[in-house]
Amino acid sequence: MPAPVDPTNLSIRQKMEELIRRKQKEIVAALETQEGNKFRADTWSRGNDGGGGTSCVIQNGTTIEKGGCNVSVVHGTLTPEAIKAMKNDHKDLNLPIDEATGLPKTDGVKFFACGLSMVIHPHNPHCPTTHLNYRYFETWNPDGTPQTWWFGGGADLTPSYLYDEDAEFFHKTHKDALDKHDKELYPRFKKWADKYYLITHRGETRGIGGTFFDDFNEKDPEEILKICEDGFDAWIASYIPIVAKRKDMEFTEEQKQWQAIRRGRYVEFNIMYDRGTQFGLRTPGSRVESIMMTLPVHASWLYDHHPAPGSEEERLIKATTVPREWA
Amino acid sequence: MPAPVDPTNLSIRQKMEELIRRKQKEIVAALETQEGNKFRADTWSRGNDGGGGTSCVIQNGTTIEKGGCNVSVVHGTLTPEAIKAMKNDHKDLNLPIDEATGLPKTDGVKFFACGLSMVIHPHNPHCPTTHLNYRYFETWNPDGTPQTWWFGGGADLTPSYLYDEDAEFFHKTHKDALDKHDKELYPRFKKWADKYYLITHRGETRGIGGTFFDDFNEKDPEEILKICEDGFDAWIASYIPIVAKRKDMEFTEEQKQWQAIRRGRYVEFNIMYDRGTQFGLRTPGSRVESIMMTLPVHASWLYDHHPAPGSEEERLIKATTVPREWA
Repeated sequence: MPAPVDPTNLSIRQKMEELIRRKQKEIVAALETQEGNKFRADTWSRGNDGGGGTSCVIQNGTTIEKGGCNVSVVHGTLTPEAIKAMKNDHKDLNLPIDEATGLPKTDGVKFFACGLSMVIHPHNPHCPTTHLNYRYFETWNPDGTPQTWWFGGGADLTPSYLYDEDAEFFHKTHKDALDKHDKELYPRFKKWADKYYLITHRGETRGIGGTFFDDFNEKDPEEILKICEDGFDAWIASYIPIVAKRKDMEFTEEQKQWQAIRRGRYVEFNIMYDRGTQFGLRTPGSRVESIMMTLPVHASWLYDHHPAPGSEEERLIKATTVPREWA
Repeated sequence: MPAPVDPTNLSIRQKMEELIRRKQKEIVAALETQEGNKFRADTWSRGNDGGGGTSCVIQNGTTIEKGGCNVSVVHGTLTPEAIKAMKNDHKDLNLPIDEATGLPKTDGVKFFACGLSMVIHPHNPHCPTTHLNYRYFETWNPDGTPQTWWFGGGADLTPSYLYDEDAEFFHKTHKDALDKHDKELYPRFKKWADKYYLITHRGETRGIGGTFFDDFNEKDPEEILKICEDGFDAWIASYIPIVAKRKDMEFTEEQKQWQAIRRGRYVEFNIMYDRGTQFGLRTPGSRVESIMMTLPVHASWLYDHHPAPGSEEERLIKATTVPREWA
């Protein structure tokens, strides 16, 4: 699709911002049905740069050890580092490479980005960590003409202990939401998630996957907005029942320790590979605490640790080294 | 200095390997004087690629929560990603940039690298984490002629609670060792450490610094070998007495929690910025467990956490945001 021109452009931007602000409220309300404490909302702005956001965060709740649901709406000038971090293949964003730095030349390129990003780390090791994100980007040429636009996003599940029924339910709910739009989307986004959520140096995915897409502008933007909205709803419809089922299960100290090791892997992924983290930390004026909010209260690294053969811990590892078809 | 030719070349390589293997034994023996348990040695090889190493690791010791002292001696073909990760400014390593990837073209470039890397995380929050590394690199052209060579390394201290006397002693001991060779080295390597050990997105250094240098080939290689040897000895002479003084101090649960938060910052630095980690994870056939051994048993991230004004915790933060002159 060609880059949309104003005012259509503005309108999609406004609609996406309205959508993510509305979904932030719904998600927080849905999570609070399973939680004795309330999320705390922090509103922040980018100082001299454009935009800001609202971070809704909970820490040491009754169910959630740490969780955050952030909305950010930012605009300004892109740094070469930020472009490089967010770049997948953005075919419409052909920037020349600076030979001296190996980074794209971005002189005068302006951007607008808005998105909702969420990570929930429950206390109970039987209750999976989850991540959800939908975002919209636009860039303009120095002369103010639109350059390109795209959507990205997805949701995934990171259990410490694998319940096949949870994985199947999570994937099936997201598949149903995507099938309504186009039956080719789920297989494609599921495969993309298995590739994206890979901790390359470990040869393991961080969890049992879900959906992921980026640089998506091959449908009408109004329809992609609806795909994002249905994605938010599919996450609420699938994750909340899993929390209700798992949050009060009994667990041992050893299981909690295993959860901390798995959260160490989560940290490795988020700090080394997550495109949102990389982009955020390289965008001048972005709020570090809202980006690092995805990191857990407890993470652990044990030297050369391997679960016992035949154990539940080993079963999880197997599901992260050979991605399965869950729906 | 021009790249040395064989057999001088080989000889420095052999001498550096001999030095790091000897210092590995001395360092482990020195640490064991403060520790009730023994380090465990794992020897590994790079499989089909060249080289291997020995990792001496301890976990849940009486003094050391986790620590490792690794020697690695590897050689083979460089990947563009590894070159990019290890590159500081290597002025003699002029590789053309591939416009498609933004990475250096490395076709046929061979390398040899050997080094000792060590990180020690003690249990006691009053006892600082430390890191030590000295390494030697060589590269050759596809026709087998020597291309360039350099040394790198340094040592630093990462306290959770700041004892000025420890910081002064650590820096003074390293300064004395460098002053013997050239009085310009300590000021230069100290400043380089303050710049290198910076967690850019936090605007904090990971600790109170020490020494750091890279791409160093401006002195006779025999003298640089001696600078490395004296660096190893300065680390032993300064760190072991600090451990002896701090390892049995009383501490509270809150202090242990603060240590976990600081170790979260350590994880951020090592995964995002540490050149050794970046280089290692991008070198095919390298041993992930020996690289990730630097990560702590416990790390914690609390949302928007700030120490109380006037507290010891705040005093530490101040020393990491405005580096001080310690010697």
